[in-house]
Amino acid sequence: MVFWKKLFSNSNTAATSEFSELNGEPKANGKYASESQISFSIERDNIDLYELEELCDRVGWARRPLRKVKKAIQHSFLVVSMWEINGEKRRLIGFARATSDGAFNATIWDVVVDPGFQNRGLGKAMMKFTIDRLRKADISNITLFADPHVVDFYRRLGFILDPEGIKGMFWYPD
Amino acid sequence: MVFWKKLFSNSNTAATSEFSELNGEPKANGKYASESQISFSIERDNIDLYELEELCDRVGWARRPLRKVKKAIQHSFLVVSMWEINGEKRRLIGFARATSDGAFNATIWDVVVDPGFQNRGLGKAMMKFTIDRLRKADISNITLFADPHVVDFYRRLGFILDPEGIKGMFWYPD
Repeated sequence: MVFWKKLFSNSNTAATSEFSELNGEPKANGKYASESQISFSIERDNIDLYELEELCDRVGWARRPLRKVKKAIQHSFLVVSMWEINGEKRRLIGFARATSDGAFNATIWDVVVDPGFQNRGLGKAMMKFTIDRLRKADISNITLFADPHVVDFYRRLGFILDPEGIKGMFWYPD
Repeated sequence: MVFWKKLFSNSNTAATSEFSELNGEPKANGKYASESQISFSIERDNIDLYELEELCDRVGWARRPLRKVKKAIQHSFLVVSMWEINGEKRRLIGFARATSDGAFNATIWDVVVDPGFQNRGLGKAMMKFTIDRLRKADISNITLFADPHVVDFYRRLGFILDPEGIKGMFWYPD
């Protein structure tokens, strides 16, 4: 019970009807047949690293040392997780995190949505939740580095590509 | 004396000869006529916010609330300052900072070099110092957002523009 208390006291619980609208296929009663709910959380202690790894596996990401993933989560400014809640069961279906100086700039990393839950507007909802949280922390400049196939997804959320010719650049070790 | 002890115990002190070489105009004795030294520091307590504001003024940046600058410095993963040391005097001539998750990614912000000290290789030296510090912290992916006129500067330091089509994107409040 402690887990659920922590989750809900630190999260926005959204009725599924909200998402079924985003999905464009609302059910007659405004809920999915399964009666499951989608919930967002910023509580990082809830995240099981193995469950997160499985989620990342499902979208084909290269595995990373869990020790470093744990450190990255600890040192991120914001960690957002998205859950499917079904009775007593909960399942991690989305994740995003942001580094930040807590004042001017934030950078969003590791945005992932379970493939079985994509194309329902949930990625968009999770990103809006993330942006909203960063805005509430008075961060004015939210940035990210987008793979080519998700540039349009972020553009629809209001992200601007190379504004005023500003270019994203990367340095990798040799 | 406390200030100097702190500065030097947490910094790399480089003989000016190193930089005169980068400058391409080494003096006969390998030092600048003034015998000044250039020093880097990662000690954030040494930074006077008003002195930093003056430095940013000199390159024409818009002023920012000092309260937020202070918070950004506190919450940055790495803060690098570059100093001209002349006898007992010290002068802030460069600054850079990075946000990071302490594991995978870092993003460099607010890179500034005093116009009176530009074109001597000092910006390059400060960036190399910054990259070196991030590498020592085992950060593998160092990123930044470059204004068009400094893209070539960062390219010469090994930064890659839009690798594999990855695009920098920005979200601003309406």
